[in-house]
Amino acid sequence: MKNLFYSNKICGDYLFLENQEQKHCINSLRNNINDYVYVTDGNGRIYYCKITDINKKDAQLFIKDIKSYERSQKIHLMIAPTKNHKRIEWMIEKLVEIGVYRISFIICKNSIRKDINLPRLNKIALSAMKQTQNCYLPIIDDILDFNDAFDLIETNNRYIAHLCHPIEKNIIETEKNNFNICILIGPEGDFTLNEVNYAFKEKFKEISLGQNRLRTETAGIFASIKFTNHYE
Amino acid sequence: MKNLFYSNKICGDYLFLENQEQKHCINSLRNNINDYVYVTDGNGRIYYCKITDINKKDAQLFIKDIKSYERSQKIHLMIAPTKNHKRIEWMIEKLVEIGVYRISFIICKNSIRKDINLPRLNKIALSAMKQTQNCYLPIIDDILDFNDAFDLIETNNRYIAHLCHPIEKNIIETEKNNFNICILIGPEGDFTLNEVNYAFKEKFKEISLGQNRLRTETAGIFASIKFTNHYE
Repeated sequence: MKNLFYSNKICGDYLFLENQEQKHCINSLRNNINDYVYVTDGNGRIYYCKITDINKKDAQLFIKDIKSYERSQKIHLMIAPTKNHKRIEWMIEKLVEIGVYRISFIICKNSIRKDINLPRLNKIALSAMKQTQNCYLPIIDDILDFNDAFDLIETNNRYIAHLCHPIEKNIIETEKNNFNICILIGPEGDFTLNEVNYAFKEKFKEISLGQNRLRTETAGIFASIKFTNHYE
Repeated sequence: MKNLFYSNKICGDYLFLENQEQKHCINSLRNNINDYVYVTDGNGRIYYCKITDINKKDAQLFIKDIKSYERSQKIHLMIAPTKNHKRIEWMIEKLVEIGVYRISFIICKNSIRKDINLPRLNKIALSAMKQTQNCYLPIIDDILDFNDAFDLIETNNRYIAHLCHPIEKNIIETEKNNFNICILIGPEGDFTLNEVNYAFKEKFKEISLGQNRLRTETAGIFASIKFTNHYE
């Protein structure tokens, strides 16, 4: 597989490459009518397609073959964005490579940044997915208040990493073979004790990420990698 | 501990902050004679000191107390630098946060980049160490030819991650409690089969980093985090 393109417009036997994807496939890489390319829907499917029509803004492709890949794990990272947006962008790229399922940004009491550039993060995620030829795009939720974010959680395997008090249970002792996992990471100034207690009520268990102080975005990556168990 | 400074000039009861460290401590943070500050030697020791003299280019501090921290693990990452130097810089920051012991850059057959900016990487490492208040600076070796790099290895627990053929043994199955570990990661175009065979002769065992294709610098971080077992 030389290049992988992305489409979210799949209709019966045909799919369409639009905007940037059309440009990338047709203008940059000079594919033409009757050429074969691979396209993913970002949701586990890879389509082997033949280009049948090229227009100014899109290209039509006939689907010859479909392969589906099941997610072996769903890691959901809930994290306070860092003050520096570049650090969030870097983190998103890495989370896509690792194969994280969902990223929700939350506003905490000690949060300095209270917004994210969601279109930019989605663009970075798409680019990272194509670059590493994964066929999964993560769900990236726009920023939510701490309390509201809990409604998004789809699992009872919930873990919070905080520094409010020492934690004995470290992350490698936790049950790693869980398919569904939610990880909660706080802002640069950490969670407040109130927030930690709220998470306990919401059935979060506390875990330690080790003796080193990690930056917020590093903690997000660290926990996601430690919990990752999807192997060939 | 509010701020942590770095010194490699420690003489008896005194130590000296030089150049950037002097500027950071005295000019930026406005510490003065008789103030107390924390200083690390980047080698596991933290000194509690009183500023006794300030000059144009350095400051003299009297050591009141020393605390030593033992490394609980020594991870040595041997890795081909990425084409984009920014990605190496980012990786160094993360490796310092994680607490990696040593980073050696190697030139492989498929390497595009054959040099690194070592002073810049050391500066980034220092800044990351201070920021996260770790007291360990990693050893960063200047770039070496693939074959020459093996002389640096201090352990028999040697692992290579490559994509030349599928690998069954994944990284979480490996003996994690090893104190000393060496990890070998190739360039963007991967190792050649010759290089992999050479590593086998040098007693490297192969490991898989999972089903996702990772960028070189992500693979370095991924393997280092997976092997990390230093916890409180």
